[in-house]
Amino acid sequence: MKLNERGLLVVLSGPSGVGKGTVRKALFDMPDQNLKYSVSMTTRKKRPGEVDGKDYYFVSREEFEKRLEEGKFLEHAEFVGNYYGTPLDKVEDDLQAGNEVILEIEVEGALQVRNKVKDAVLIFLVPPKREALYQRLRSRGTESEEVIQERIKKADREFKLAYKYDYIVVNDEVANAADRIMAIIRAEHAKTERSIHNYLKLIEED
Amino acid sequence: MKLNERGLLVVLSGPSGVGKGTVRKALFDMPDQNLKYSVSMTTRKKRPGEVDGKDYYFVSREEFEKRLEEGKFLEHAEFVGNYYGTPLDKVEDDLQAGNEVILEIEVEGALQVRNKVKDAVLIFLVPPKREALYQRLRSRGTESEEVIQERIKKADREFKLAYKYDYIVVNDEVANAADRIMAIIRAEHAKTERSIHNYLKLIEED
Repeated sequence: MKLNERGLLVVLSGPSGVGKGTVRKALFDMPDQNLKYSVSMTTRKKRPGEVDGKDYYFVSREEFEKRLEEGKFLEHAEFVGNYYGTPLDKVEDDLQAGNEVILEIEVEGALQVRNKVKDAVLIFLVPPKREALYQRLRSRGTESEEVIQERIKKADREFKLAYKYDYIVVNDEVANAADRIMAIIRAEHAKTERSIHNYLKLIEED
Repeated sequence: MKLNERGLLVVLSGPSGVGKGTVRKALFDMPDQNLKYSVSMTTRKKRPGEVDGKDYYFVSREEFEKRLEEGKFLEHAEFVGNYYGTPLDKVEDDLQAGNEVILEIEVEGALQVRNKVKDAVLIFLVPPKREALYQRLRSRGTESEEVIQERIKKADREFKLAYKYDYIVVNDEVANAADRIMAIIRAEHAKTERSIHNYLKLIEED
């Protein structure tokens, strides 16, 4: 019996290359979850295997900037020359329906959510070693050395922003990281500030 | 990989009759836990089946008051004419060793821990319905009607103190309640305020 009926806005973030996408997929593969993935919109090029509307909504720069002016993003960031953003419309509906909405986003966007949505749950995913992240960035093989260097510098700046998050989860093993995140979601629902309202109704009812 | 190495002081509390003891036993029966039960000291009479040093340390009123004067309790309370208290000595050792220490205590004692130990995790266990608790108090069969009435009045006062706790967990099914508590423990270890220290060491090391 869950006292808090509203879904949680869960922000899964961390430096580029830490494995946010893999951990997110492991979360959605878990049994008995009611997670909804908030598909981001981007102006970057589709990578091999990516599907429009599933991995991202791929749009032109023009289209993105139009929506930005109309206030249609919960957060957005520009990164290595491309825009990334979370479309607002579906998020609120999913939360109201009691689903947890998972945003898998860059650090810059996560901190925008921190300021806008007071009760969002911010999770900072980190590698077990800094070097492990550098290696992953290099081995991706889809980017030039220049882009890789830019990502490494960015990661180094982002490592220092962990203190702005609610939780720090080590991505030592994908399954462990996913388990920890599910535990965080369960625990957050039981938090007094989220559950006291329905608790009071419950004990008044008898 | 757990960033916070120190154990948590977990206070499992709630009105008398809510099933704290049963849930605590279910927690200790779970696999892969490293929980330590802090055995309380009491001046109340042993109930059938209870074992000294396991369920409680049973001592005389005189002995209890002597220890109280010596500051040897983390918390204590007097309830229906008997003292209950948590001996300090073992708790700190267990926390340092990385074990979670579970206190299963009355509301009055829990609020003393709230004031003394800032980073304790306070869990308020509640029945799915108020009436369910009254029934459980009546069906115990070891107490007089007078004591039962006293417990019911006390429960009614305690129901209003939920807001002082970190988490509210409904004891609808013992296994569910225990699962929720284990999730809370895992999540608390990942909390930024507990894990940032070791996280910073981790990223500096490379």
